[in-house]
Amino acid sequence: MKINETTHTSIWYDKDQNKIFYIDQTLLPWELKIRELGSLDDTVRAVRNMEVRGAPLIGVTAAFGMWLAAVGGHNIEDAARMLLATRPTAVNLQWAVNKMLEDFHSRGLSADSRVSEKHKIKIKTLNAALEIRDLEISCSKSIGENGLHLIENLAKKKNGKPVNILTHCNAGWLACVEWGTATAPIYMAHDKGIPVHVWVDETRPRNQGAKLTAFELGAHGVPYTLIPDNTGGHLMQEGMVDMVIVGCDRVAANGDVANKIGTYLKALAAKDNNIPFYVAMPYSSYDPDTPTGKDIPIEERDPDEVRIVDGERLTGNGEQGTVNGDRLTGNGERGSLIGVAIVPEGTPVANYGFDITPARLVSGYITEKGLRRDAS
Amino acid sequence: MKINETTHTSIWYDKDQNKIFYIDQTLLPWELKIRELGSLDDTVRAVRNMEVRGAPLIGVTAAFGMWLAAVGGHNIEDAARMLLATRPTAVNLQWAVNKMLEDFHSRGLSADSRVSEKHKIKIKTLNAALEIRDLEISCSKSIGENGLHLIENLAKKKNGKPVNILTHCNAGWLACVEWGTATAPIYMAHDKGIPVHVWVDETRPRNQGAKLTAFELGAHGVPYTLIPDNTGGHLMQEGMVDMVIVGCDRVAANGDVANKIGTYLKALAAKDNNIPFYVAMPYSSYDPDTPTGKDIPIEERDPDEVRIVDGERLTGNGEQGTVNGDRLTGNGERGSLIGVAIVPEGTPVANYGFDITPARLVSGYITEKGLRRDAS
Repeated sequence: MKINETTHTSIWYDKDQNKIFYIDQTLLPWELKIRELGSLDDTVRAVRNMEVRGAPLIGVTAAFGMWLAAVGGHNIEDAARMLLATRPTAVNLQWAVNKMLEDFHSRGLSADSRVSEKHKIKIKTLNAALEIRDLEISCSKSIGENGLHLIENLAKKKNGKPVNILTHCNAGWLACVEWGTATAPIYMAHDKGIPVHVWVDETRPRNQGAKLTAFELGAHGVPYTLIPDNTGGHLMQEGMVDMVIVGCDRVAANGDVANKIGTYLKALAAKDNNIPFYVAMPYSSYDPDTPTGKDIPIEERDPDEVRIVDGERLTGNGEQGTVNGDRLTGNGERGSLIGVAIVPEGTPVANYGFDITPARLVSGYITEKGLRRDAS
Repeated sequence: MKINETTHTSIWYDKDQNKIFYIDQTLLPWELKIRELGSLDDTVRAVRNMEVRGAPLIGVTAAFGMWLAAVGGHNIEDAARMLLATRPTAVNLQWAVNKMLEDFHSRGLSADSRVSEKHKIKIKTLNAALEIRDLEISCSKSIGENGLHLIENLAKKKNGKPVNILTHCNAGWLACVEWGTATAPIYMAHDKGIPVHVWVDETRPRNQGAKLTAFELGAHGVPYTLIPDNTGGHLMQEGMVDMVIVGCDRVAANGDVANKIGTYLKALAAKDNNIPFYVAMPYSSYDPDTPTGKDIPIEERDPDEVRIVDGERLTGNGEQGTVNGDRLTGNGERGSLIGVAIVPEGTPVANYGFDITPARLVSGYITEKGLRRDAS
């Protein structure tokens, strides 16, 4: 999608340089920093530090990581284990790593044969990784097309007023490669001239809504309003939300949805106010081997993610003066980005990354194969 | 309650100095700053800036503000209007200001007679304000006693494991004068040796949970864990919450509860998981003149409360080094408390202060007159 009228994707292969590049999402919205994904170690670090995040993008990044592992002469089974250990909840990671291993195995390559077959692996493995990337893009596009008519139907009842859509966390193009999942129908509606307005949950503790969703919607020109995570229920009670669309990190066989912590609360509020609650789900996030939400492991993360908030330091008079569009060129000054602790050191904190929204609260799954009432 | 083994209240009259003092709650947990409430203007500013906040404390502070207005020769009707305009949602403010006006009127004092009757007003009005303060303390104490048995009953089923109580925002002694409302039963249970553990919602955007509830529970020695507002639903699904107790800013005649934004979402989750959801309600927060929650005005506040987060600056190596118990003496260094903007300037933000929890989601109202199924 667009940033300052230029089209971007979150990760890509540069053929001329024979290198992988990605947007470092920990610096947005302040700086558009592009980094090279140069090795397996780079990949593990980038996924763990959430420089790349979002279930589909984690999968694509891990696929490139498997290519880099093979090129770098790593034992591919070890590489797979290292990558799978980075984030436990999103199933796309497993899906992409397993697809890469299948590709290796289908060509009779074992962990030991990788060095002698180096050139061959280098080319073919890259193709497999690029196919995974292409698949995510086409999935997102289909999800957009399949969700678009839901927005169009709502727009018909709004008499030209914007369709108000609430989303949680970032299931945008930054979480994928292009279009996003939850945002794909929104971008398509906007590009088609249907008036939409998005309520963006800030999504504590890491504020991916405030930092990423608000940024990408704004950069593309989609009207939005940032809200604290506490606000959505009130807006729904007041008739200010027409639909909810969220992404997912894993959907169990019975349709239970693991997504960013707090999603369940919004699903309850949507149900209580008869507002449709949709999950945008590429089938790479569907896991038939996990029977129910109870079987999905919930990642616990560093308490400092709750305790420390980062942002731009205000100048002496309390004004914000240094951030503007120029910062997105990557040439911006960095000194004003700092962290503050909102509570004293040693404050006991719990930091669960995800929660489970029971299938009974989901109005439908917007997938690349169409809108489904059941996930399977 | 206790801070470093010393007992404090949130606002008090110092007889020797004939002055009112209060704890500036915008500096907690970093500094225990005690300020003088010296005039009507001081009062308006302190309430509006939320140096004092919490429905019962706002009422008590406004009562002292009315005394200060009379002493200062202000037109008391104008003073009442100024105070009522500071915060629209909490009904305690109206209740306390009206009680003070009644006291003035009952003694035949009009706005014009205040100067000539100065000495008399000065004494009698202070008594009326002190009575309001005493009433809030005794209300809190009774609420504590009336809620204690709920915790005791749960403790019997826990075989010595702590009773896990979730609370939202700060309805602690800092929001009142002593004991608090939601926290009163918790302090009493803890002081009685019943093992309790509190899940403290950080309560964006102003983080009163992180800054005030975590601070006051910790300072008194009550075990707690700070969580993002998104987390409570997951904890309830996992059986990690035995009960919810929240405060209230206003309860309508039908039992609908206005409380800090996000309360409604926790009430929905409690209902969905069969967890009792209690509202601690002094009758000063009950408003029989407001038929339902829909009739309660919801305050919209400055978007910068969402956009800017304040806390302690980290040192160069990312560590927090300067905050410790000494900061609470009021002698601590102040230079390291700063604000950061979590989003660029101009980001569209909505900031509603409260939401309405429908009466159907409330298991009971813990009041100074006993536990009630209905608010009236």
